[in-house]
Amino acid sequence: MLFSVRVEVSLRPGIADPQGSTIERSLPTLGFDGIRGVRVGKSIRFDLLAVDEESARREVDDMCRRFLTNPVIEDATIDLDACEGAPA
Amino acid sequence: MLFSVRVEVSLRPGIADPQGSTIERSLPTLGFDGIRGVRVGKSIRFDLLAVDEESARREVDDMCRRFLTNPVIEDATIDLDACEGAPA
Repeated sequence: MLFSVRVEVSLRPGIADPQGSTIERSLPTLGFDGIRGVRVGKSIRFDLLAVDEESARREVDDMCRRFLTNPVIEDATIDLDACEGAPA
Repeated sequence: MLFSVRVEVSLRPGIADPQGSTIERSLPTLGFDGIRGVRVGKSIRFDLLAVDEESARREVDDMCRRFLTNPVIEDATIDLDACEGAPA
């Protein structure tokens, strides 16, 4: 089965986010008010061939832990969508 | 109303993604097979105070166009969630 995968890598709560802080400080200068708590993360999308959803999720979990995130300071959120009608 | 906003900034189709290509090339070496089409983007989250959903969406659209993306090479996807029970 082919899965369309999105992994959102975000800094854990409490970890300083200089990129987000810079955006937040700049917005009022540009006329955007009422915005707070800006946090910047990464969004990684890819297609994955796996036998079923369980093994796809296991593989993505493992990738996140070993490769895509730094688990000390980052969290990963995984979204899996089975692509309809795709070859197995 | 308080909105929880997520903006996903992704490279437009056809624009080279060296970060994604590097990840894709590295994965087989680490034992992860069956992955293709890796694309890396940004995920920006924040809270926004606005009078209603329409004006919130207009403000975020405007921010994306003027500040958060480079519209020549990047697309933005906007998710807005009204926070229940939050002060107006």
